[in-house]
Parts: sequence; C-alpha cells; structure tokens
Amino acid sequence: MEKIDEFFKQLTLGRKPINLYEPIYYTLSQGGKRLRPRLVMMATKLFDGNAETALYPAAAFEMLHNFTLIHDDIMDDAPIRRGQPTVYRKWNGNIAILSGDALATLALQTMLNTPARPEITLQLSKLIGQTSAEICEGQQLDLDFETRGDVTLDEYVTMIRYKTAVMLAGCLKAGAILSETSPENQEHIYQYGINLGLAFQLKDDLLDVYGDGTVFGKKIGGDIRENKKTYLYLRALQNADAESLSVLQHYFSSINFDEDEKYQAVRAIYDRLDVRSQTEKQIAEFVRSAMQELEAVHVQNDDKKQIFKDLLIELSQRNK
Amino acid sequence: MEKIDEFFKQLTLGRKPINLYEPIYYTLSQGGKRLRPRLVMMATKLFDGNAETALYPAAAFEMLHNFTLIHDDIMDDAPIRRGQPTVYRKWNGNIAILSGDALATLALQTMLNTPARPEITLQLSKLIGQTSAEICEGQQLDLDFETRGDVTLDEYVTMIRYKTAVMLAGCLKAGAILSETSPENQEHIYQYGINLGLAFQLKDDLLDVYGDGTVFGKKIGGDIRENKKTYLYLRALQNADAESLSVLQHYFSSINFDEDEKYQAVRAIYDRLDVRSQTEKQIAEFVRSAMQELEAVHVQNDDKKQIFKDLLIELSQRNK
Repeated sequence: MEKIDEFFKQLTLGRKPINLYEPIYYTLSQGGKRLRPRLVMMATKLFDGNAETALYPAAAFEMLHNFTLIHDDIMDDAPIRRGQPTVYRKWNGNIAILSGDALATLALQTMLNTPARPEITLQLSKLIGQTSAEICEGQQLDLDFETRGDVTLDEYVTMIRYKTAVMLAGCLKAGAILSETSPENQEHIYQYGINLGLAFQLKDDLLDVYGDGTVFGKKIGGDIRENKKTYLYLRALQNADAESLSVLQHYFSSINFDEDEKYQAVRAIYDRLDVRSQTEKQIAEFVRSAMQELEAVHVQNDDKKQIFKDLLIELSQRNK
Repeated sequence: MEKIDEFFKQLTLGRKPINLYEPIYYTLSQGGKRLRPRLVMMATKLFDGNAETALYPAAAFEMLHNFTLIHDDIMDDAPIRRGQPTVYRKWNGNIAILSGDALATLALQTMLNTPARPEITLQLSKLIGQTSAEICEGQQLDLDFETRGDVTLDEYVTMIRYKTAVMLAGCLKAGAILSETSPENQEHIYQYGINLGLAFQLKDDLLDVYGDGTVFGKKIGGDIRENKKTYLYLRALQNADAESLSVLQHYFSSINFDEDEKYQAVRAIYDRLDVRSQTEKQIAEFVRSAMQELEAVHVQNDDKKQIFKDLLIELSQRNK
C-alpha cells in the first residue's frame, strides 16, 4: 500500500489552490483500513492481471470512498473521523463540500487514466460511475430512514447494499475487468463482494451493541444513542411483543436520555428478543453466499482463493 | 433543445429514491439558457459530426453545470435561482449536497455512454473530468478571494477562466472531438470558448453595475451589495487615488449599508475612475482574441463560422 500513499502524495501535495487540495491530502493520508485498494489488488492477483495497472483503480476507489466520508461527515455533523477532526470541522462546510467534489473528480480522472486498452479503461470508468451513483442512492435511503417509522429489514439490506457493499464489490470487479477474465468470473467475484459487504456492515451493527469498547476502537452503543435504525433494531421491532415495542419506541423517540441507561435498557430488550443470535445467523448466511460465489469462480489454481476465504473470516469474526 | 429536455426527463423523472432524483429533475427542468448544449451542437455542426451522438456530451455538460449551481447555492447561501427557490432552500442542505453529488455522477455516466468509438468516448470523458476539476479550483479561488484584500486583476481572470470559461470551451471541444476534427481545430475552438467565456463573465460584471434592472432580469448592484470582488472593483482599486480608495474600502468593509446609497456611491467612483470603458475595452480584447481563434479554424466552408461570430456579439453586447 506504500505505492498508493505515494500516488496520493503526488496527486495532491502542494497543489493549488491550497484550500482545495490540503483537505484532500489530509483525508487521504490518514490511512484507514485501505480495504478497497486491497480488494482491487487481490482480484487482480487472482485473475493474473497487471499489478501496476491495478494501482489506478485501487487509488480511484480509495479516493471515491474518502470523498463519501468527507460529504457524509457534513450530513451527519460528525466531529471526528479516524481519531482526527473531520474536514468539515477542521476547515468548514464550504471547503468540505468543495474538496469532496474535487476528490470525486480526482477519483474519476485517476480511473480514466488507467493504462489499459480504451475498452477496458472505459469499462472500469463505467463501473466507478455506477458505483458512485448507487452510493448516493444508498446514502439518500439512509437519510430517508431517519424520519421513517416503517423501515423493513429488506429495505435496510437494500440500503447497506448500496451504501457499503457495492463499493467493495466494485473494487473486486475492477481487478477482474482489468485482468480481462470472463464475464462469469467478473459477476461471481462481484457477488462475493456484495455478500462480503453485507456481512461486514451487519458485523459493524453487532459490534456497536455487543463489542468490547476497549478493543472496538470507538465507544459502544453509539448507534443506540443516535437512534440509528440498524439491523438489530429493525430485527427487534419485528420480534417485539407489545411491552418491548413500547420500551423501544420510548427510547428511540429522543436522544436526550442518560446514555448508559438507554444502552442498558435497549440491550436488555435485544437480549430478550434473541436479536444477537439472529443477526449472527444472518451474517453467517451472507458469508455462506459469498463462499458459494467464490467457489463458482474459475481459476487454474484454487489455492489462490484462500486469501478471499481468510478475508471473509477476518471481517465477519472481527472484534474491531 | 427539446431532445435534451426529453433526455433529462427519462434519466430522472420518477426514479428512486425520490428525495435524490426529484431535486435533480427540478433543477434540470428549469431550463435556463441551455448555452452549454447549444455550444456542443454548434461545434458538432461546424465540424460535420453526428448530432445524435452529440446529445450525450450536450446533456452531460448541462448536468455538470447544474451540479455546480446546486452546490454553489449552498456555499453562497443563495435563496433564489432562475426565479425559483434553490434546492438548498426548497429541500435542505443535506439533500442539496447529495443530489448535487448524484447529478455530477449522472453527468459522467452520460458522457461515458456516448455512442462512439471507445477512444473517442474516453477522450470526451477525460475532457469532462478535467473541466470538473478546474471548475472546483475556480470556485475555491472565488471563495479564497472573499477574505483576501490583495487580489490582482490577473488572478481574477484566472479565477473566472476556471469557474466559467473552461466549461464553455469544453463544450465546444467536445463537439470537435466527437467530430474527429484535427487537434489544431480542437485547440482553436477551445481557445475561442475560453475567450468567449471571459468576455461573457466580464459583461456579467458590467451589467450588474450599468445594466437596466427592468431588462437584466435581476436587481442591479447585487455584486456591490455583497462586496463581490468583480473585474470592475479590482480595476477601480488599481486606478484609485487615495480618496477613492478610502471610500471604496469603507463601503466594501460591510454589507450593512443602505443598499441604494452604497450602490450610488460606488458607481460614482467607478464612473470617476473610468472603470466602465476599461472593462468594455477588456471585453473587446477577449472578443478579438476569440475571433482570431475562430479564423484559425480550418473548415471547408467558412460561412459555417458565422453563427460563432453572432454568438460572440450576442453574448458580449447583451443587455440581460
């Protein structure tokens, strides 16, 4: 991933106007998991593509991801990201809007510069375009859910598919496209990515309630405090008897409760309604689907798939 | 332009999530001058390109333009655009950020779908990518200028080049690229567009002070009221004696003056410092440069250039 860092540095460091490119460099140089470039490189290796070429889509998707973070942080009024002030707070809203716009453009330009045959570069660019559109749709659904009382579990899964899973899937497909593997392989690795992403997000929802705060890296119960309609909450609503329902609705009607009291009360209801094991079961189903898609991928040497199985385990069983 | 309207309708009307696509349809269906699609079609006709194919870049640039308006209106806290409430005011800031992001993505996707050879579609997409990056830079310069007291005329021209002229030039170049005319022709029509855009913006600055409010369509003196550092203001600063300078600085230090008093006082200084004729002279220079670039374009029948000359006259001599 040092090459990615070098790439970002060259693209933004010292570039003018400073107030546009400094927030971009600030965001990109914070690191984070770099999960998206890692997925592009993994798929490129699986399908015997060119790792040098893959740097472009790898960087492009990481930039697209960071663009969404900059804009989401404005919309969520979020003060901290990766332990640092958000662009929105460190600079201001206008600079966060504009540097986000510029970063989205840089992501596109990077993809368009992928040194491959024009057909391939065009396919990759259409992929990042589609991904970007779906992420906007997912974010809008998320915003819509805030004020809706009738969100279903299916709608929730659709929302996280767009907001989270399509980008992970897109990264894998990018590696498959540039390696010029078959359309079937492209589709199977994409669907592996979708299921990986869904499992990943549900695990996130689970850790927010049942994680160990000292390991998780952020405070437990944040979703409950903020009345976030997570998979656990929607599952609880679905299972709830009249009494549990009334307690849940009481606590999710305001953010002005004692934080710990609210967390303990909601968690007690989740426990009673068996929400934890049902969420774990759903995660296991997504993991199983991902494994099936992975098996359907045709490559000469099936040992090369091991790293994809390891990643599934890593992300779905993580404690942080 | 009915085809463009039909295009926009199909792309956005009734699409979900409603809260994402309704503001986009709202913005695109307001019309406006449709100058950008017109430029794409003009260049396509000049270079004997395919008008059906040109609809894609024409629509893409108009969408990119409208995306910038949606985000600029948030940054400027603007209540009204084209006589209607801005997206930011009619919905809210979050929806304006997100529907702007989605519209920028739609613009890109439309360009990527241009039905041409992959090399050509890729060139067109790189062009809209570059245009988008430069517009972000121009907008950032504009924001930076608000708090700077030492902006030069050259810096101002650089800012409007990026913020306004590159998109007009990009539209013309798009028509040239898809018509597969020579690189020299592409460059000359691009530079024609740059000079057209610079003349267009300076005329806008001029009309804000010397226009006829009943014809101009918006209230005269808005730039003065908002302390906008226009070409006229910067030219006045350059020309000013100590007394004029002190009056100008006094009035540009706050927005809490009686609107009419401030306008009359500033205009009197502009008059005294000969700012109007100097601005007109600068516009005439840009028009002359544009004409030269147009002459350097090689086409079989020079009569086809007439419409470009007419447009220059139309935009640089307009009263609204």
